[in-house]
Amino acid sequence: MTEPTVLILMGSDSDLSTMEETTKVLSEFGVPYEIHVSSAHRSPVKTAKLASEAAGRGIQVIIAAAGMAAHLAGVIAAETTLPVIGVPMTGGALNGVDALYAMVQMPGGIPVGTMAIGKAGAKNAGLFAVQILSLAAPELRAKLVSYKTKMAEEVEQKDQALQVSRRG
Amino acid sequence: MTEPTVLILMGSDSDLSTMEETTKVLSEFGVPYEIHVSSAHRSPVKTAKLASEAAGRGIQVIIAAAGMAAHLAGVIAAETTLPVIGVPMTGGALNGVDALYAMVQMPGGIPVGTMAIGKAGAKNAGLFAVQILSLAAPELRAKLVSYKTKMAEEVEQKDQALQVSRRG
Amino acid sequence: MTEPTVLILMGSDSDLSTMEETTKVLSEFGVPYEIHVSSAHRSPVKTAKLASEAAGRGIQVIIAAAGMAAHLAGVIAAETTLPVIGVPMTGGALNGVDALYAMVQMPGGIPVGTMAIGKAGAKNAGLFAVQILSLAAPELRAKLVSYKTKMAEEVEQKDQALQVSRRG
Amino acid sequence: MTEPTVLILMGSDSDLSTMEETTKVLSEFGVPYEIHVSSAHRSPVKTAKLASEAAGRGIQVIIAAAGMAAHLAGVIAAETTLPVIGVPMTGGALNGVDALYAMVQMPGGIPVGTMAIGKAGAKNAGLFAVQILSLAAPELRAKLVSYKTKMAEEVEQKDQALQVSRRG
Amino acid sequence: MTEPTVLILMGSDSDLSTMEETTKVLSEFGVPYEIHVSSAHRSPVKTAKLASEAAGRGIQVIIAAAGMAAHLAGVIAAETTLPVIGVPMTGGALNGVDALYAMVQMPGGIPVGTMAIGKAGAKNAGLFAVQILSLAAPELRAKLVSYKTKMAEEVEQKDQALQVSRRG
Amino acid sequence: MTEPTVLILMGSDSDLSTMEETTKVLSEFGVPYEIHVSSAHRSPVKTAKLASEAAGRGIQVIIAAAGMAAHLAGVIAAETTLPVIGVPMTGGALNGVDALYAMVQMPGGIPVGTMAIGKAGAKNAGLFAVQILSLAAPELRAKLVSYKTKMAEEVEQKDQALQVSRRG
Amino acid sequence: MTEPTVLILMGSDSDLSTMEETTKVLSEFGVPYEIHVSSAHRSPVKTAKLASEAAGRGIQVIIAAAGMAAHLAGVIAAETTLPVIGVPMTGGALNGVDALYAMVQMPGGIPVGTMAIGKAGAKNAGLFAVQILSLAAPELRAKLVSYKTKMAEEVEQKDQALQVSRRG
Amino acid sequence: MTEPTVLILMGSDSDLSTMEETTKVLSEFGVPYEIHVSSAHRSPVKTAKLASEAAGRGIQVIIAAAGMAAHLAGVIAAETTLPVIGVPMTGGALNGVDALYAMVQMPGGIPVGTMAIGKAGAKNAGLFAVQILSLAAPELRAKLVSYKTKMAEEVEQKDQALQVSRRG
Repeated sequence: MTEPTVLILMGSDSDLSTMEETTKVLSEFGVPYEIHVSSAHRSPVKTAKLASEAAGRGIQVIIAAAGMAAHLAGVIAAETTLPVIGVPMTGGALNGVDALYAMVQMPGGIPVGTMAIGKAGAKNAGLFAVQILSLAAPELRAKLVSYKTKMAEEVEQKDQALQVSRRG
Repeated sequence: MTEPTVLILMGSDSDLSTMEETTKVLSEFGVPYEIHVSSAHRSPVKTAKLASEAAGRGIQVIIAAAGMAAHLAGVIAAETTLPVIGVPMTGGALNGVDALYAMVQMPGGIPVGTMAIGKAGAKNAGLFAVQILSLAAPELRAKLVSYKTKMAEEVEQKDQALQVSRRG
Repeated sequence: MTEPTVLILMGSDSDLSTMEETTKVLSEFGVPYEIHVSSAHRSPVKTAKLASEAAGRGIQVIIAAAGMAAHLAGVIAAETTLPVIGVPMTGGALNGVDALYAMVQMPGGIPVGTMAIGKAGAKNAGLFAVQILSLAAPELRAKLVSYKTKMAEEVEQKDQALQVSRRG
Repeated sequence: MTEPTVLILMGSDSDLSTMEETTKVLSEFGVPYEIHVSSAHRSPVKTAKLASEAAGRGIQVIIAAAGMAAHLAGVIAAETTLPVIGVPMTGGALNGVDALYAMVQMPGGIPVGTMAIGKAGAKNAGLFAVQILSLAAPELRAKLVSYKTKMAEEVEQKDQALQVSRRG
Repeated sequence: MTEPTVLILMGSDSDLSTMEETTKVLSEFGVPYEIHVSSAHRSPVKTAKLASEAAGRGIQVIIAAAGMAAHLAGVIAAETTLPVIGVPMTGGALNGVDALYAMVQMPGGIPVGTMAIGKAGAKNAGLFAVQILSLAAPELRAKLVSYKTKMAEEVEQKDQALQVSRRG
Repeated sequence: MTEPTVLILMGSDSDLSTMEETTKVLSEFGVPYEIHVSSAHRSPVKTAKLASEAAGRGIQVIIAAAGMAAHLAGVIAAETTLPVIGVPMTGGALNGVDALYAMVQMPGGIPVGTMAIGKAGAKNAGLFAVQILSLAAPELRAKLVSYKTKMAEEVEQKDQALQVSRRG
Repeated sequence: MTEPTVLILMGSDSDLSTMEETTKVLSEFGVPYEIHVSSAHRSPVKTAKLASEAAGRGIQVIIAAAGMAAHLAGVIAAETTLPVIGVPMTGGALNGVDALYAMVQMPGGIPVGTMAIGKAGAKNAGLFAVQILSLAAPELRAKLVSYKTKMAEEVEQKDQALQVSRRG
Repeated sequence: MTEPTVLILMGSDSDLSTMEETTKVLSEFGVPYEIHVSSAHRSPVKTAKLASEAAGRGIQVIIAAAGMAAHLAGVIAAETTLPVIGVPMTGGALNGVDALYAMVQMPGGIPVGTMAIGKAGAKNAGLFAVQILSLAAPELRAKLVSYKTKMAEEVEQKDQALQVSRRG
């Protein structure tokens, strides 16, 4: 089996249904990944270990998903020089605005590339990881171009379907 | 010199002018404290060490000040069972709302007792620490009662001054 | 029966289902507590009496839960020198942001240690109270350390379960 | 001297420059008033006393000004059946949104008639008090009608001035 | 039948279920009222007529309920010198924050006494109207005092019930 | 002199410095306009008259500028079938978010085409009016095309200047 | 069949149920329109083509509906001098506030006439388009006047129904 | 001269002072870059050309800076499969919250890795680009490790300075 190049960390196993948007994209592009539950607050040692050892074992991109006072992405970014992608989770009384602010408003020196709140962000985290990996992998670049073309075609098809239904 | 019972950590030395509201209160109550610059993101090892060793060397309360995606209080709370008080800093485009959400919206299991954004919060962090310490220190309890009385008297004096100025 | 050391006040009996997160934690740690319905607005006399007499009868920490223009924690804090922990309730059109701001933005002089909005905050209020009490109770400190270890183990177990399910 | 019919309470003497918008209006309408500094948090006894005794000594309307976790209006409303008008103060990191939410989002049973944040609200608090008093005072009703007419005339004059300056 | 002293205007008939909180209070206090659907935007002439003629036919307080860009209260206040109470409705994508801002942030000169968003605000609008009317109606004042006492008693009963259920 | 086809109404003469962004654009395109101070709240009769008579005297587009609980655009839209463009003003404690919500969140039936808060919105209100007028005025359409080209050229020039300064 | 004068673009076919509020209004007024699915992000070429060719084939107004980081209206406005009306869609964790800000806060030079979030905005987009078209179409102007009258009558009927039901 | 691997696009030349935080970082790491002014709205053709041709001429990462309804990053991401990093600019009445939402809330399919609002985000955009490039450039990886170490040392030095000044 190919070694994983993407490491996905979730603050809670309840984030899994959202983060399957990420794994679906990675699978679709044939990118091997590893996914773990590891909390910045409840398992800080495990999290620090996963983050600091990632580069050494071939991980190239880390994706972190967390909700509320979402510290996971920032805590990981503090422990690695790999690019870290953050996905703010919905849920809680503030429905993800708290997680968005806690991820994106990182101080100078420790970047987290933040995606949209929830499923759209989870999907895009996968794509963004593929885009990064594609810089050294021409076959991924080619797949991304096809993916983009297919998205445009799907819009075209939906538009055609709409025209047909309206004529109908 | 007495050993410190309160540990103040600031994410940046630019937080000092705000956190002097905290140290003023602690000094006023005669509570020995230690204050350090230590960032959750830029010096994670130092921060984890300060947090995890605090209880062992007699610290009883930790106060953490940070701005923007303020992770400092949460990262400390992950490493200790001491009560952690968080003070969100103003500054940045969101002026402290980001820091407030990133501090107060902690997930279940890891509490941070969060204060108001900025100087009022910094002052209250000092008082809240004193209130906690006073549970085992009757002389602090007595000082807190005096402090409360003095606050009421100051309001009364300001009101008297207002009445005089309006009669004048 | 042991005398209560924690006093929980709720602005409305509808807050009970949320605040059972607090009582569950206190029971788990064997901390005796008292819980009352008492509104800052509808029963100000009862509230002031409960707050001002708390210290005298051995209460060490007060936890206040309220929603909307949540004044309860601040009103209690005005009447006591005990540490007051605030839990903003969800509900209403603003879903707890109003309660959060009304609790956390206390003016200098009267601190309220504010927790997250809703159930996570209620659970953490219990833990924060235990952390405070543990300063003078080594057996509570030990239990907190176990609790922390157990949280990390639960994350580990959830992660293991995830790995198994993915291999499956 | 005429007995005051309006009682103005401010949480801090720093609110005075804003609340002079209120006193200017009351003076303009010849409404006698009393103004005090009294904090919900720092002088709760004084505040409760001023609120609960107001009706008995002829006060008909209470105006409360406070900032941040502005509890003053709600605490007063808990102690009286007189109409209470709230004016949220600007200032602090949230610039008055906190005070607005803490005043306007009162639970059912304890109304506070809330005005705009800051000077516009302070001016309107005075006018709203006059409108209430005018129900039993035809001469105030007449003055309010003149005031309204004058406002319309001033708009007209400003518009005329604009037309002239543009023709010029 | 007694002439109405309170006029309730709703921007839409869908506001009725919320505003029945207001009518319930007015009925409970025996205050005669009139309630109309009249939109600031869709029926401006009707609205202006209702507002400007209100004082002449004995109305003493106007309550306006509206959602979204809630202009109704302000438009009414522009046409009368009677006190106008505003109740922001929930609903729409912003769930009442828009209506709150559009009601409470009135410019200097035209006050609207704004209540909480939704049902709590609707109930309080009724009570605030009663408080205003009570200034010239001692029997209403007495009822308000009883109402306040009853609220405190209900809190007491709920607290007793809680104690019983916990002992059980 | 040509009859005005655009009517600009401002709630206050303090809005003039912002709205000169609008008049500059209209002048640049040679579109005759009229500008008045008229408040929805302080001069409702004048405002209703200006709005309801506009179409009859040849006005084709109305632009309304207001701040805080900005009702002006909505009140105008209630009185005319002409397209109404709203410009939310900055200022006040909420800095224009209140005005934005109060303008854009119009209920179904009464549209207001809302622009950005402040100067950018004022400039765009002028351009949007010209775009509307250009539908029946080919010379305006041509000018708009030139304007667009010029904007692109200015970007190009700024980019060239940047390249030069960086080479320098 | 008459050539379309209004072009409706939706970022996603899931926006259709909301945008049928727009098409209902246009049909009611007899305004021919075209409606397409075309995304600013997934089909930029198609979107640019639809926008840039619109004027040349007789389109007079473009309506764009999009959610989240809603770029569609702005991207269209960049490619045409026709008036562009934006309708922010609800949905996603921020429920349309993101789409509102991304549409209305256009920089100077490129206006988008923004409507309310969701169905009310969709309906008003249709009406606003009709208002624009009516400037050169007296029969549309007459229909708009009738529409306005009918809205006032419906309010009157709802009010009558309310009076009847309350008397009943 | 080395070919640029990073392309920075700014919506306005007024963004330059902020984006110099980015260029400083890139220079410090020896990463060749190109920087252009190009607006999504005012120069859409130039922007699309720069974005779509970037990959072909060796660019590996694109950084886009824009304010208000910040469409630039999304428009670029629609035209390329390269990773796009977005930096929301402060300024305007909403001070960058609008730009943040308009950048980060991208729909599924078109990711933008969003940074903090303003200068901290600009600095981090540079670092994030370096992190991405470092995956194929061991010397950059080494420099990043040094950079991280230096950040920790600077915190340590600031802390030492603080200790000295307090002892002093």
